[in-house]
Amino acid sequence: MLVIGIAGGSGSGKTTVVKAITRQLNGKVVVIPQDSYYKDSSHVPVEERKNINFDHPDAIDWKLMCQQIRELKQGHTIQQPVYSYITCSRSTTETVTVEPAEVIIVEGILIFTCKELRDQLNIKIFVDADDDDRVLRIIVRDVAERGRTIDTAIEHYCDTVKPMHLQFIEPSKRYADIIVPQGGHNQVAIDVLATTVQEALEKRNRHKK
Amino acid sequence: MLVIGIAGGSGSGKTTVVKAITRQLNGKVVVIPQDSYYKDSSHVPVEERKNINFDHPDAIDWKLMCQQIRELKQGHTIQQPVYSYITCSRSTTETVTVEPAEVIIVEGILIFTCKELRDQLNIKIFVDADDDDRVLRIIVRDVAERGRTIDTAIEHYCDTVKPMHLQFIEPSKRYADIIVPQGGHNQVAIDVLATTVQEALEKRNRHKK
Repeated sequence: MLVIGIAGGSGSGKTTVVKAITRQLNGKVVVIPQDSYYKDSSHVPVEERKNINFDHPDAIDWKLMCQQIRELKQGHTIQQPVYSYITCSRSTTETVTVEPAEVIIVEGILIFTCKELRDQLNIKIFVDADDDDRVLRIIVRDVAERGRTIDTAIEHYCDTVKPMHLQFIEPSKRYADIIVPQGGHNQVAIDVLATTVQEALEKRNRHKK
Repeated sequence: MLVIGIAGGSGSGKTTVVKAITRQLNGKVVVIPQDSYYKDSSHVPVEERKNINFDHPDAIDWKLMCQQIRELKQGHTIQQPVYSYITCSRSTTETVTVEPAEVIIVEGILIFTCKELRDQLNIKIFVDADDDDRVLRIIVRDVAERGRTIDTAIEHYCDTVKPMHLQFIEPSKRYADIIVPQGGHNQVAIDVLATTVQEALEKRNRHKK
């Protein structure tokens, strides 16, 4: 089993890289998104929930995330938590059943900040993009998909996204084995990564025979 | 034929990466070093030769370098020039016979500054390292191998290596498809790159059959 971590700032094109690799490997991959492991905040009074900082490492339930990755590596099926941004809580009734696969892709902005998680990754990839390109993507996405106005999107970027990026995400680039510049538009890097994964799978299968 | 460019600053571990990939591919690779293509300076008065700036793009005979890469790609054998640092001149009697190979690795600090050369590269890799790590390696190497004192090595670094790095090499990182941090000590990246090359070769050979 090959465990690949794909980190990178908000708006870096991380998801595009994950999707492109997944598509090229068609079905042999399971993706574990950091965002499924937000800590439950149902105990936080409703009026304070808007202040939760989702870009801080403390927002993530690393213990559960690491444990479930370990279980997948051992060949076990996991019940992945379902998180709702609307209620800021983890579903008490619903989970997603995730079967183990030959390749596990772990993705999220903060995944390289957790040593226990890093130690489980065979290849650590950081998707990089210029800060100006990132902010433009974030603002456009926030307005189109998250119902923010341009002003509240800019405020959220300046008050939360940017300082967390500088404090936690950018420094975690140090742990990367490979840096992919120009994020999702970098077909050469996507091909190189897909080839590596494909080859690792084939090598394993040849050994099995 | 696959043409891979490996750039990166002085002391970044570029050569270590090239050697590691070459070793893993055992013999199917030919390496074209930028340093073989320094322009001949035999016409420069001897006392002025110490002022030649070898870290500036103008020091390289890009025209010949691009032409010889093209010839290799077309399956022709080339006569690679031999440059002497001692006389600052290209040998008029000696050349190195280079046979075409399935993989051509072009390496050098300045290779991404030349558009015509960039356009010939299928994969552009930039080997990156922290500036402090680089300067330490450069100083140690200059003293051990190039007969410099610590003082002259530092002077050369500050007067030439650093400004040329900032002006030409660091900005050329933008053209990279993949950035390899921690240069020669990064075994994961070396494995990924060697796998990519190996797989490209196998794919080609399968098609041939």
